[in-house]
Amino acid sequence: AISTALANFMNRVRGNRVKFDPDRIVMSGGATGAHETLAGCLANPGEAFLVPTPYYPAFDRDLRWRTGVELFPVVCESADNFKGHREALETAYKKAKLANVKVKGVLITNPSNPLGTFLDRDTLKDIVNFVNDKSIHLVCDEIYAGTVTNGDEFVSIAEVIEEVPKCNLDLIHLVYSLSKDMGFPGFRVGVVYSYNDNVVSIARKMSSFGLVSTQTQHMLASMLSDNEFVGTFISESRIRLAHRHDMFTRGLAQVGIGSLESKAGLFFWMDLRRFLKEPTFESEMTFWRTIINEIKL
Amino acid sequence: AISTALANFMNRVRGNRVKFDPDRIVMSGGATGAHETLAGCLANPGEAFLVPTPYYPAFDRDLRWRTGVELFPVVCESADNFKGHREALETAYKKAKLANVKVKGVLITNPSNPLGTFLDRDTLKDIVNFVNDKSIHLVCDEIYAGTVTNGDEFVSIAEVIEEVPKCNLDLIHLVYSLSKDMGFPGFRVGVVYSYNDNVVSIARKMSSFGLVSTQTQHMLASMLSDNEFVGTFISESRIRLAHRHDMFTRGLAQVGIGSLESKAGLFFWMDLRRFLKEPTFESEMTFWRTIINEIKL
Repeated sequence: AISTALANFMNRVRGNRVKFDPDRIVMSGGATGAHETLAGCLANPGEAFLVPTPYYPAFDRDLRWRTGVELFPVVCESADNFKGHREALETAYKKAKLANVKVKGVLITNPSNPLGTFLDRDTLKDIVNFVNDKSIHLVCDEIYAGTVTNGDEFVSIAEVIEEVPKCNLDLIHLVYSLSKDMGFPGFRVGVVYSYNDNVVSIARKMSSFGLVSTQTQHMLASMLSDNEFVGTFISESRIRLAHRHDMFTRGLAQVGIGSLESKAGLFFWMDLRRFLKEPTFESEMTFWRTIINEIKL
Repeated sequence: AISTALANFMNRVRGNRVKFDPDRIVMSGGATGAHETLAGCLANPGEAFLVPTPYYPAFDRDLRWRTGVELFPVVCESADNFKGHREALETAYKKAKLANVKVKGVLITNPSNPLGTFLDRDTLKDIVNFVNDKSIHLVCDEIYAGTVTNGDEFVSIAEVIEEVPKCNLDLIHLVYSLSKDMGFPGFRVGVVYSYNDNVVSIARKMSSFGLVSTQTQHMLASMLSDNEFVGTFISESRIRLAHRHDMFTRGLAQVGIGSLESKAGLFFWMDLRRFLKEPTFESEMTFWRTIINEIKL
């Protein structure tokens, strides 16, 4: 019951343009557990995932700590709106090869944590083609899918793989969670969704280390099956997030502070460059310490 | 709140003769997660724990699968009522050394899964002295503590270490769970209880991979804080288990089948030796297959 309710919820958050199969849903202790499970399934200690920068800092704990799997940064620039372009991936892949690091996959968060942006269909297609060319895995973390201000704009990897000819589905894996989209971090409900039967089967065995309690599953199944409640919750949550984001953007603009254009997530990137004494990394760090230690933000 | 409630419950199940400190309680996804966490904290891949036989078969998954830690059997005989005596531990320790296996600890289940027996105070003291002499760890799984027919007879490792002079408490760790004593397997509430500050701190960080949801914690805290309910539950559960065990023992005795004397757990060991064609292992296996495949027990 909970798998069906979760699959329906995942479909709905993505505008019902894709259909998730309840039998491919493996529950885990939050997205934290889901990421570790996938890392453990897909790579051996010392092998690496390419991760576009900037990335969620806790990935260093979630994926690497107990599995020994490595993360290899894909340098993305603010100039191209931090998109993980094909070229940047190729460069990182070559760099890893030169450093004798075996690359087992690409890990993206879409919508991005920490940027609050999301990738367009073409960029996603590029990434899917890249992993197919190299025969490596793609882990796509979509835990902020429901926070996209206008849900219709967001493109899930689940849509894209249907549009890429000859995509090897065994390479495609999703991480989902109710922590952000439903505001339930304490419920520890994460999901590994894999198109690879072996990964589903092994992840299911691994899930015995961090199962969600049956009574929590029962409560969530009822809650998520209430279509009216879910519909109202998602749309109202989007409206409120957009409103706050807008208020904050305009307020900052009034005092001359620009920000990265974003339409998802709970993040906000201000452009504070004009407050730097010099355009250097040292100056950035000094400014950062002032914010933390003196202003105590 | 949940830590205090759990500590009090753990005390109570052990006749209030010891006092557990809520700050040393780390919750995990069932005893499954607790055992993996401890194995990961105490040993590196390839290093081993000595485990008296027969042992809970799922330890091979729980402790070894993802950590790479090994289990080294301590052969215990039915002749000495399957006690993990000092001598058997010394023999196994030497054997491991000869096999170039680094022993990092001893793992016991007390009350025993699968025997349903429990160790007396002197045997436990022997084991505590053994791990102190060798400077290796002791993991004591007491998840059946509350199923002991007469609770006053059971001796927890927590009592014993107070009576062993100069015991290095950093070596002592407990695994507990509500799955058996409260009949809550689906709630996935396990506990790592360690007297070692480093282990507490690292296990707490690791617990982010399999936390118990806040609403389950909330419900359990209220339930476990209801002293009257808990008292009635534990004593009634003990009475009913004893009654069923007694009925089953007497029924089997009437048809001439003996059984291992046990006073805990949900297990029952029948002596079916007289049904063997020959006193050999092959004959045992043939008989076992008959039970499984033909009688379909």
